[in-house]
Formats: sequence, structure tokens, C-alpha cells
Amino acid sequence: MTDRKAPVCVLGGGSFGTTLANLMAAEGVPVTLWLRDAKVARQIADNHENPRYLPGFRLDERLQVTTDIEAAIASAGLIFLAIPSSAFRSVLQSVGPLLAGKQVVSTTKGIEQPGFLMMSQIVEQEAPAARVAVLSGPNLAKEMAAGELTATVVASEDEQLCHAVQAVLGGPNLRVYASQDRYGVELGGALKNVYAIIAGMASALGMGENTKAMLITRALAEMTRFAVHMGANPLTFLGLAGVGDLIVTCTSAQSRNFQVGYALGKGETLEEGVARLGQVAEGVNTLKVLKQKSEEEGVYMPLVTGLHAIVFDKQPLPVVIGKLMSAEQKTDVEFAAVMSAGPIKS
Amino acid sequence: MTDRKAPVCVLGGGSFGTTLANLMAAEGVPVTLWLRDAKVARQIADNHENPRYLPGFRLDERLQVTTDIEAAIASAGLIFLAIPSSAFRSVLQSVGPLLAGKQVVSTTKGIEQPGFLMMSQIVEQEAPAARVAVLSGPNLAKEMAAGELTATVVASEDEQLCHAVQAVLGGPNLRVYASQDRYGVELGGALKNVYAIIAGMASALGMGENTKAMLITRALAEMTRFAVHMGANPLTFLGLAGVGDLIVTCTSAQSRNFQVGYALGKGETLEEGVARLGQVAEGVNTLKVLKQKSEEEGVYMPLVTGLHAIVFDKQPLPVVIGKLMSAEQKTDVEFAAVMSAGPIKS
Repeated sequence: MTDRKAPVCVLGGGSFGTTLANLMAAEGVPVTLWLRDAKVARQIADNHENPRYLPGFRLDERLQVTTDIEAAIASAGLIFLAIPSSAFRSVLQSVGPLLAGKQVVSTTKGIEQPGFLMMSQIVEQEAPAARVAVLSGPNLAKEMAAGELTATVVASEDEQLCHAVQAVLGGPNLRVYASQDRYGVELGGALKNVYAIIAGMASALGMGENTKAMLITRALAEMTRFAVHMGANPLTFLGLAGVGDLIVTCTSAQSRNFQVGYALGKGETLEEGVARLGQVAEGVNTLKVLKQKSEEEGVYMPLVTGLHAIVFDKQPLPVVIGKLMSAEQKTDVEFAAVMSAGPIKS
Repeated sequence: MTDRKAPVCVLGGGSFGTTLANLMAAEGVPVTLWLRDAKVARQIADNHENPRYLPGFRLDERLQVTTDIEAAIASAGLIFLAIPSSAFRSVLQSVGPLLAGKQVVSTTKGIEQPGFLMMSQIVEQEAPAARVAVLSGPNLAKEMAAGELTATVVASEDEQLCHAVQAVLGGPNLRVYASQDRYGVELGGALKNVYAIIAGMASALGMGENTKAMLITRALAEMTRFAVHMGANPLTFLGLAGVGDLIVTCTSAQSRNFQVGYALGKGETLEEGVARLGQVAEGVNTLKVLKQKSEEEGVYMPLVTGLHAIVFDKQPLPVVIGKLMSAEQKTDVEFAAVMSAGPIKS
């Protein structure tokens, strides 16, 4: 069994990193949170609050905080990465050798270009001697911080590492399920944002329950098709990091992706929507990357293609919807026939 | 190719049967709708409206209506069944021999006891010479009638029959996907109501997005576990009749199942909730049947067991939730390891 008293560290003091660190500290796990910003670090140490990324939540007094990344890593055998994707490689480059032999869990979603790399693949490149896992699921940080019942997935072929994460992170309000499909779990988290744009658009158009369920289900089929082509297990998408995360992403109206989609659905151009929202939504970049990759790989992704035509080629929405609805009616779950292994008794 | 002008009939003039028949009639398919109630039949014939089950929707003038079931069946090669589960066997018994050689598509959800039989299995017993398929998916009748974009699944090992249904039913607002897993598709439609009760309860308790996504995903895992044990393909549950229908069922606050759950979540007993709502929700019966069957078969269904304890054994909600959250943390998608067939390229 893993020792729940073994020290852990979390790199990155945004809302998710702070929440993770605090949940573990509250369960008596010795946790050090590293963040770059000395002012925020001091506020957490003095006032037990992260006013920048998690205002209004009182943090556990046992949570240690530091701006010394080398000391933070040295203090722990299990390290969670909650660094924004834009800074991910540069941070890893600076500390790669220190991670040798450590258990490293990436919680960051994103795709690095060129190379179409997931964050855990960057860890492998920059810290080749580390043991690597990823954490993903329907996990809005603010709800987790507020103690809402939540479930997440830790994925790695390293079963011992999965058990270690379940032991330190599982608690009365958080359940941690294990998966061996690291790539599939990570890909689910990276791709979902594209479909949140479509969900926002559907909402702006006043589409009903049938239509929303169709969009989410076909989005899932499309994500799964792509992921399976890239080497993932289709059944990962039945789980928390697939359909679970997709449901939260497509039904939460607060996300920037959803809001960009809503603006597009109301007839605004991408430029107008982005100007009003003040920032490019992550899903817009993922859309570009995914359109290109799916064409290179020859994977059929009609929703990505249709959304790309609306966002970048200014094709009218009704034209794109008409095309989607009149395409050939194929099979519901196309892997079903290939993967069928007959009944599994017990 | 199937002839779109070949005559079709629909047995059952409830909201779903009327909607299906009308959608096909509007696309120029010759359709006869059979219903038992002569008064409603006359109203449809005279006023092109079904005021009892689909008030406010104008039906296509080409839609034929009859109360003569033998004539209706004789007129068509493709027959849709939209008869309530309570009357399903008795109607099939009366017309079984007439269905020999016909293509029969059941759209009715339910489980017959004793025997744990799906509706299409009743068709097989009462009309052994018929060709059988089922239709299921996230299909609220009123939204379909209103022309909302909708997708559905036709499932049968009889591929020609699937193609025939796609040809007559597919249209500008309705996409029909095919599946070979008739049992899995049918089971998805029958089991989902139990989880709508849980969703209603979660809503009454003010649970957040993380919790709702966890419940839907774990409900899907549990349904899939049961269905796979019974011989279905797990990947069916990635599709419209699995996750698609579950999303609609668990997010539509109008369903009686959701409302019973909401009442329970607010602290009412089942009896109080049912008394106020005026009718027992279907999910309550399914819950009983499923609890018993899962125990007989030795399938682990913690949500069904927990809900049963709340509904029938009056166990307090917080106790049941505490048990669920403290159970062993297992794998995310347990079939993943068993079913993994490696990457499927293109």
C-alpha cells in the first residue's frame, strides 16, 4: 500500500493546482505547492487564500507554499503538474533531470505544435527517467474546491503509480478511477474544447434536447474515431475522461469555448466574438490543429470540418447544417463490429 | 435500394407512433397509422391533428388512418410498432401470424416480467416468422414532430431491414444510424429510466456539474456492465441509444422519472411523490426488476442498489451517498482491458 503520509508536491498555483494541493492537505497529506508569483505565494502562506485564482476559498493551514521549484521537487516523490500548456515545456526543460525516478502526474490539457504532442509526451522528452501518468475528467476546479462530489481518472501503464495517486487524492468528496490508456485519456481532455464551441452554437440557435444529445453523441463518435486511429482504446471514451468531461464541457455555459460558439450562433464573426470576450478560446486553436491533423491522417471528422468552415471560411451556418444532415447515414458506433468480443460473463 | 414508395404502417397512435407516421408521410412515403380509438382516428382523418397525444401539431394530409389492424398490416411490408409495453404482447398475440415475412420494427421500451424480456423478444415469440429490428435513441416525440434535428438508431442483424428503415425514415431533420446490436440498443432504452430518477434527485440536492457528469458516466458504466454480462456489445453504449438517450433522459426535467427523483431528493417518500404526480414512474418498476435481476446474475450495480435502498428501504440519502463515495475506487472503464484490440488504422 502507498503511504498517505509520503510528501507530495504540486507545480502550478492556478485554480486547478491550488485546488488539488488543498484537497490533499485537508486529508493530512504533506503537500508543497510551487508557484512562480511571489506575491500570490505570500498571500497563500499568510492568509490561506489564493485571491488571484481561487478567491473566496479558505485553504488548509497545513498547505505549504514555495517559489523554489527545485526545493519543491526535492521534497516529494509524487509530483502533480498543473502548469499552463503555454509554459509547460519551458518549465519541464528547466527541471527535467530533477524528475528522474519521481512519479509525475500531468493535469494540463493541450496539444503542442508542431508534433501534435500531448503534455505527458513532453514530460517523456524532457524528463525521460520519470514515471508518468495523467489526470483528467469532469473536474471544474471551483466545484472541487467547494467540496462538490467529483470523480476523476488517473491513467498510466504504471499501475503502482495509479494506485499511489488513488491513495493520496481519493477522499470523501473525490473518487479517483484508474485507466491504463494514458494517451486516450489525455486526448479526450485536449479535443473536447472544439465540441464545446458547437454546443454553444446549438444553444444560441435554440436547439432542443434531441439535437443536443445528437451533437454530443456524434462528437463522441468523432473524437473516438480519431483517438482510435491514433492508438487509443475506444472504451476510454465511455468513461469519465471521455463522455464525462464532454458532458460538463458541452453543458457549462461559462466556458470561453461555449461563449465563442454562442456568439457565432448569434451571427457574430470569430473576430467580433473574440474582441468582445477579450481572449481567443482554446478550442479555436484546437480546431485548427485538429482539422489539419485529421486531413493528414485521413480521419473523417464532419463536425470539425463543418465548424472549421463556419469559423474560418465564413460559410453560412444553415449551409453547413444542411450538409451534415444530408451526409450518408452510417453506423451508430463504427468500432462495434470490429471490437466485438462477444459476451463477457462476469 | 429500398423503394421509398413501398407502403409502411405504424401500429399505435400515441405521440411517438403519430410522429413517426407523420414524418414519413411528409416525405411522400405511403403510410397507414393504426390506432384503437375510433374517436381519435376520426379526428386525425378529419382535422389532421391528434388532439389527445400530439395536440397543436398539424399532420400531413397524406397520412392514412385506420382502426382495422388486419387491413393496416396487410397494406404494408414494413411495420413499426409503437404500442405501450402494457398492451404489447396482447396486440402481438392477436396479429402474430399476419406478420410472417414482414419487416417489423419495435419502438417500444420496457421489460416484460417474468422472463426479463425486451419487446423485440416478444415479437420473436408471437411472430416467429417476422424479420425484427428495434428503433431507439434520444428522441423526444414532440421535438421530432416540431422538426428539431434528431438522430436515432435502427438495430438488427438483418442489414437489409436496417437499410429499409434508413431509406423510409431518414429525412432532412432525422438521421437514422444502423447497429447490429439489437439487444444492446433495446436494453439501453429500457434501463435509462432508473438513472433519470437519480438525476432528478441530484438536481433537488443542488449538485454541481462535476457531480452530474460523474453520475451520468457511472450510470453508463453500470448499464454497460449489466448489458455486456447479458450479451450486448459495450460499444453500443457509446452511441445514440446508450449515452445519447441517457443524456436526454437525465437532463430533461419534464419526465416523470426525473420528477419522482426530484421529490425523493426533497425528502418526500415514494408514496408522497407518486400521490402528488398521480402516476407511478416507469423507472420505479424498472428499478425493482433490475435490482432483482442484477442480484440473480451477480452483476455489481451500486447505483441501482443505492437507489433501491432509498426508495424501498427508506434509507437516508446521506448514508447511501456516503457508501457510494467510500466504495473501492476501481477502474474507469472496466471492459477496456478485456476489449482492447490495439490501434485500428483507418
